[in-house]
Amino acid sequence: MKKNLFITFEGPEGAGKTTVLKMVVERLQREGKEFVATREPGGNEIAEKIRDIILNPAHTAMDARTEALLYAAARSQHFAEKVEPALALGIPVLCDRFIDSSLAYQGHARGLGMEGVRSINEFAIGDRMPDLTILFDLEPEAGLARINAHSDREINRLDVESLAFHTKVCEAYKLLADQNPERFRIVDASKSLDEVVENVWEILKNEL
Amino acid sequence: MKKNLFITFEGPEGAGKTTVLKMVVERLQREGKEFVATREPGGNEIAEKIRDIILNPAHTAMDARTEALLYAAARSQHFAEKVEPALALGIPVLCDRFIDSSLAYQGHARGLGMEGVRSINEFAIGDRMPDLTILFDLEPEAGLARINAHSDREINRLDVESLAFHTKVCEAYKLLADQNPERFRIVDASKSLDEVVENVWEILKNEL
Repeated sequence: MKKNLFITFEGPEGAGKTTVLKMVVERLQREGKEFVATREPGGNEIAEKIRDIILNPAHTAMDARTEALLYAAARSQHFAEKVEPALALGIPVLCDRFIDSSLAYQGHARGLGMEGVRSINEFAIGDRMPDLTILFDLEPEAGLARINAHSDREINRLDVESLAFHTKVCEAYKLLADQNPERFRIVDASKSLDEVVENVWEILKNEL
Repeated sequence: MKKNLFITFEGPEGAGKTTVLKMVVERLQREGKEFVATREPGGNEIAEKIRDIILNPAHTAMDARTEALLYAAARSQHFAEKVEPALALGIPVLCDRFIDSSLAYQGHARGLGMEGVRSINEFAIGDRMPDLTILFDLEPEAGLARINAHSDREINRLDVESLAFHTKVCEAYKLLADQNPERFRIVDASKSLDEVVENVWEILKNEL
């Protein structure tokens, strides 16, 4: 594997990121690769507590700027405790959501503006952007339909947002991918799970 | 009282801010004044939960940037839920700690730099700086001695910092007061409690 490789998984709700990440992680483990797989928000005790505040469905009064700052705080802690030490040892890191989620959700979909959200995130992580971002591309209607079909899935505060909100999230991801073609790899998440896993595996195989 | 007056109480640990604020609040109530008295971090359900994470003595692994972002998040929520609505109705607000605490503690004493900390706080509150800031000026040794003398006082994660840290906090407050003479009023917090209350009362009487 290349040294210091930082790979993030991004996409709207219901696009299958988390499921696919779990499956490729098992495959990497079978091949005996050394890597760290983690997720945002969370990944350590302090960040998990912040995650609980963010995702608590009772917190309907949460201000959009507070939400953005909490994500940045959880990111900062997770980055300092888990991501940065692994990268410093030359261990690749696969991370479920990172800065692009904040730019898409809080910056664009909540209307705070990507620039302000980028600035608080630069405070959190400095200039350490991901080396590679795998975007799970899916129409917002399809993502919401998948969420609703899985009634056993834990429903969090962001799932209950409207279709208009999810549409904005998808728009923002496309914009970010257009602006950063060297960093983004787009996967068609409307395909079957097996096909998506295969596509992601091909990307990882070439890059790692 | 003047409309839209936003007054903050600042100073190092042990300077007596909170005790004095409580006493002048009782006096304002006896005079039948309308005002809101509140504190940071906290002041509402979400911000209090953030406060619990920040001040938990078990969180020794907390990254300094995480701490600064959590304070900004709590400030944003407290400001949107409690401070801004009162000011919009023309009700004066007295607040125990605000942005200057972050500039002094995280910006200067923790060494993150005042500019970065100012920028995340501008994201949190826009350009709504306090109209008046009462600084409780006290030598850091005196503040720490007072904290240690009150064994019944709840000890939080910031109290156990070193004298060097508290000295930097005091330096930063003096710098902020020098840079913003039109906003700051300095009270000598080494005097007796009654004298300090009297001094603060004089300031409030002139300004409100």
